[in-house]
Amino acid sequence: MQLLDGKKLTAEMKQEIASEVAAFKAAGGKTPHLAAILVGHDGGSETYVAGKVKACAEVGIKSTLVRFEEQVTEKELLLKIAAMNDDADIDGLIVQLPLPPHIAERHVIEAIDIRKDVDGFHPMNIGRMVIGIPSYLSATPAGILEILKRYNIPTAGKSCVVVGRSNIVGKPVSILLSRKGYPGDATVTLCHSRTVNLKDITRQADILIAAMGKPEFIRADMVKEGAVVIDVGITRMKSEVTKSGWKLIGDVKFDEVAPHCSYITPVPGGVGLLTVVALLKNTLLSAKKTIYP
Amino acid sequence: MQLLDGKKLTAEMKQEIASEVAAFKAAGGKTPHLAAILVGHDGGSETYVAGKVKACAEVGIKSTLVRFEEQVTEKELLLKIAAMNDDADIDGLIVQLPLPPHIAERHVIEAIDIRKDVDGFHPMNIGRMVIGIPSYLSATPAGILEILKRYNIPTAGKSCVVVGRSNIVGKPVSILLSRKGYPGDATVTLCHSRTVNLKDITRQADILIAAMGKPEFIRADMVKEGAVVIDVGITRMKSEVTKSGWKLIGDVKFDEVAPHCSYITPVPGGVGLLTVVALLKNTLLSAKKTIYP
Repeated sequence: MQLLDGKKLTAEMKQEIASEVAAFKAAGGKTPHLAAILVGHDGGSETYVAGKVKACAEVGIKSTLVRFEEQVTEKELLLKIAAMNDDADIDGLIVQLPLPPHIAERHVIEAIDIRKDVDGFHPMNIGRMVIGIPSYLSATPAGILEILKRYNIPTAGKSCVVVGRSNIVGKPVSILLSRKGYPGDATVTLCHSRTVNLKDITRQADILIAAMGKPEFIRADMVKEGAVVIDVGITRMKSEVTKSGWKLIGDVKFDEVAPHCSYITPVPGGVGLLTVVALLKNTLLSAKKTIYP
Repeated sequence: MQLLDGKKLTAEMKQEIASEVAAFKAAGGKTPHLAAILVGHDGGSETYVAGKVKACAEVGIKSTLVRFEEQVTEKELLLKIAAMNDDADIDGLIVQLPLPPHIAERHVIEAIDIRKDVDGFHPMNIGRMVIGIPSYLSATPAGILEILKRYNIPTAGKSCVVVGRSNIVGKPVSILLSRKGYPGDATVTLCHSRTVNLKDITRQADILIAAMGKPEFIRADMVKEGAVVIDVGITRMKSEVTKSGWKLIGDVKFDEVAPHCSYITPVPGGVGLLTVVALLKNTLLSAKKTIYP
């Protein structure tokens, strides 16, 4: 069993992006600029956004954080997005989710200029991904592809089972892995809460992607001997043994499943870490006008 | 074995749409208007477009056919599309594919106003379909859903195997059938040319959708006893017994497979017929501003 080391990959990729950013600037390019909007003071969101701002600094990408109080109206938020769409210095624009219930996430996502949608949540970028033309891939699917690529894990003709049909993980990764090319060309089965005989299906998977957000749901008897297991689940649970009082639990019961795998991602230290890297990469692509000229 | 009768459904649905169009007009609504652009004189395209124009007339939808010679430039075509986007009387705008090789289909499709994209080929409509918000569904996937619905075929928890990963059939129908709700909630496996042991996979399907365009590829030994088989393939082959000198062949070897099915679509007379109906329905939805207010 080999560990798919998100920490090592993240460090490698950040270094690569930093070099690319430096080379782009040295050749007369602008400093890539990521702008994030944060509404309210949710603890999780604060942590995520702080991580993104820090990662930008590490690779030479400029970042701006715009804060709104919880009470901001949808209209005010949309006006700010429109202004930031028009700001030529901003290459990437993201709005940290979730938003307060009085604001429709869909309106906010569709308001972002597709050329700055480095989260890849805009339907236009999703649609382009589906039909196989260049687009911003969202962070988690991009991170999964990157892990497979960097560990040279073959995917063509492999049976890939994705458990969980969320818009931001399960659906896009199932589409990406069934596309032509590498990583792709897999025979993908998308499972979810209505799937019957789930265990019979997951046991046939050469590559199993767990993305349903149910802590330790995937047990040893659900996994084929020698499978590649990618654990996307991150559930924060109370813990008496950690300093913070919390620990992160994946969708896979790691200790039990790992001995049966050829490769497996740990949680924490796996896919989650790579998501910020995807954002940095998209912001650089935007500054370079690679996807949308 | 019961035949999924595309001819009967098409007649039923046209009648329903005609009533809806009449009611909409009686309530002061405008006459829905479908505009089609046809480039060149390809025999197949001429036939398809003529069928669409005729179907419009049958249900009280106005249609306009704009013709260009094969030599039209991409720029001229895009200018015409822009003008038709601005024409408030036009509710649906389609460009018959394929286009001559000097014109990029992608540019043409993305030039159509998403609110008039009744073919559902624009990435924005595909992306919205993926994330489950209202959009124009393209004709063949919509036709397949309609057949399942009208014959009350259960899909929740069923194993559905889609063979063929085209942008206009395989990919969208696999996404639609794995979505929440009915018809959907199926466990969908998307197979293609790189799939290994295809027969083992198709034999597990409760619902088998053949959409690879290989005449009579699906044989009896690839189908589970009692399966529902939807044949999307339409290949035109020379024939000495038909008047026209041609016959249409599906992806399923019908005579051999049918006795093993609970339900099966014939070719011709199956899914193909329903595609025009989807277009009429979308044009009416556009006139009513149902999807995009």
